[in-house]
Amino acid sequence: MQADVLISEVGPRDGLQNCQSVMPTAGKLRWIRVLAGAGLAEIEVGSFVPAKLLPQLADTADVVAGCHKVGGFDVAVLAPNLRGSEDALAAGVDKITVPFSVSETHSLRNVRRTHVQMFEEIRRIRAAIDEQPKDRRPHLEGSLSTAFGCTLEGAIDADLVFRSADALLAAGCDEVGLSDTTGYGNPAQVTRLVTGLHRTVGADKASGIHLHNTRGLGLANALAAYEAGIRTFDSSMGGLGGCPFAPGASGNIVTEDLAFLFESMGVATGLDLDALIAAREVLHTELPGEPLFGFTAEAGLPLGFTPATPGPARQRKTGA
Amino acid sequence: MQADVLISEVGPRDGLQNCQSVMPTAGKLRWIRVLAGAGLAEIEVGSFVPAKLLPQLADTADVVAGCHKVGGFDVAVLAPNLRGSEDALAAGVDKITVPFSVSETHSLRNVRRTHVQMFEEIRRIRAAIDEQPKDRRPHLEGSLSTAFGCTLEGAIDADLVFRSADALLAAGCDEVGLSDTTGYGNPAQVTRLVTGLHRTVGADKASGIHLHNTRGLGLANALAAYEAGIRTFDSSMGGLGGCPFAPGASGNIVTEDLAFLFESMGVATGLDLDALIAAREVLHTELPGEPLFGFTAEAGLPLGFTPATPGPARQRKTGA
Repeated sequence: MQADVLISEVGPRDGLQNCQSVMPTAGKLRWIRVLAGAGLAEIEVGSFVPAKLLPQLADTADVVAGCHKVGGFDVAVLAPNLRGSEDALAAGVDKITVPFSVSETHSLRNVRRTHVQMFEEIRRIRAAIDEQPKDRRPHLEGSLSTAFGCTLEGAIDADLVFRSADALLAAGCDEVGLSDTTGYGNPAQVTRLVTGLHRTVGADKASGIHLHNTRGLGLANALAAYEAGIRTFDSSMGGLGGCPFAPGASGNIVTEDLAFLFESMGVATGLDLDALIAAREVLHTELPGEPLFGFTAEAGLPLGFTPATPGPARQRKTGA
Repeated sequence: MQADVLISEVGPRDGLQNCQSVMPTAGKLRWIRVLAGAGLAEIEVGSFVPAKLLPQLADTADVVAGCHKVGGFDVAVLAPNLRGSEDALAAGVDKITVPFSVSETHSLRNVRRTHVQMFEEIRRIRAAIDEQPKDRRPHLEGSLSTAFGCTLEGAIDADLVFRSADALLAAGCDEVGLSDTTGYGNPAQVTRLVTGLHRTVGADKASGIHLHNTRGLGLANALAAYEAGIRTFDSSMGGLGGCPFAPGASGNIVTEDLAFLFESMGVATGLDLDALIAAREVLHTELPGEPLFGFTAEAGLPLGFTPATPGPARQRKTGA
């Protein structure tokens, strides 16, 4: 079936990188297998960064290799620079997301690069991708981090977000995505940024959003984003890594609740809600002691609930 | 100042009635005092039901008396029938909410009355109110419980919701309010029900909504309700009584997060967010061991955050 929205599961990357414990490779692959089985058509499975920085994701190349054996979904990874992107290309991924901090203060602090240096880095990544055979070129997304505000700079000028998006596409990104890294976003701001971004670069070049639930507004922001035309939503099973009691935690929006939001509204996600809720158990087994968030899994589906996605179905990218 | 929306705090009623522990009267009044101090202009402080049914609220008359000494906010109570309403009138309240289950199965199970019997009861309540001197007549709201679905009947026909609203107003209610008792609601349904209800009885007769966060959609539903024209929102500090791990828990939406949603969107609540977050500590002290929910209080306000409500201000009812 053709889904109305694509839910991109980022738990194995954004979730695990914010957990204290390290999930073994085999556990990740067992979890990823049930995620794919529930219909998730895109899963961000790791990040190509030095192992000393993120030991939780040090096995990303092995995870990507394992994902190829699972099959049936797009394998996405994060890479902060050319070096990580080269590793991603060697591993063979379907999508590389490069984070770009719209707050230059945050960029300097996080990856020690100015905006100009980041654009240059992305041009190199583009060139490296284009050296690949045509059928092995991953999709390159520039993620507009801190677009909704920065813990160092505070408010971020919307025009800077739009100009950055333009520059990222000019540097070679296939698309850009808004990212509420800090959980500062609100629905009115989501509407303004999505509308302005679509006016600047076109809706087809900016179809995705990465929202956090840091202040509880995650699903309200997702609703506003959907209404403004966003069709790809990052989320994390169990809101993994998003403990509100741990300062700096990512606070990803919860995949199960996001899927219930859409399915209950009549917007097909291509996901099997029951299988998705069951997959939570696998995550819990592979990562015992880590708190899982979300309400739908605990409450269960409403009596007589009819999802928008008919029967067990696999998610397909919208517009694909 | 004139607030754009009214947040009606129901924690002392809907929150406490779903807690195992009983908060002493003096503790309730200490909590209510700080709630009022944070700018909450309407607080539902109890329910006039037999003490054996809800021992947590057995002191409602005393709480109401104490609230008169606090002052500065509208004292609201729940009453399921004439008997409870007479107690409410004797105590001297500003608002009486009578729950009416749109699901007749739920009505029979909950208050052992058919719809026809409920309308008759409300006519008697209206008559009892009208016997009071004009300046001592509380506002009478009929709450359309199970409007979004019923755990016994499943889906609820929207036309039955609208007809029930009409009949409640004809029986003497001053206004009606939609209530997602079961947490079945979704934003698309909220839009449909609010729009249809406003078409049926007029927006001025149905300005409020009572949402639960049972499946995590509470704030998304609140956003949809606001966009459809709702201006009064029930919520509970800390989502009190809404433990997702306790079957049957109410799962109220969290006052602090709801207030942050509106204030961040530029919609003035009349609340002082810092005072609201501080009031949480008083609740925690008066009810130790009870889990408090919500993200904004834990995460804190964004750097450079400017609320819509300027400075410390008291909430005023919209349209008043």
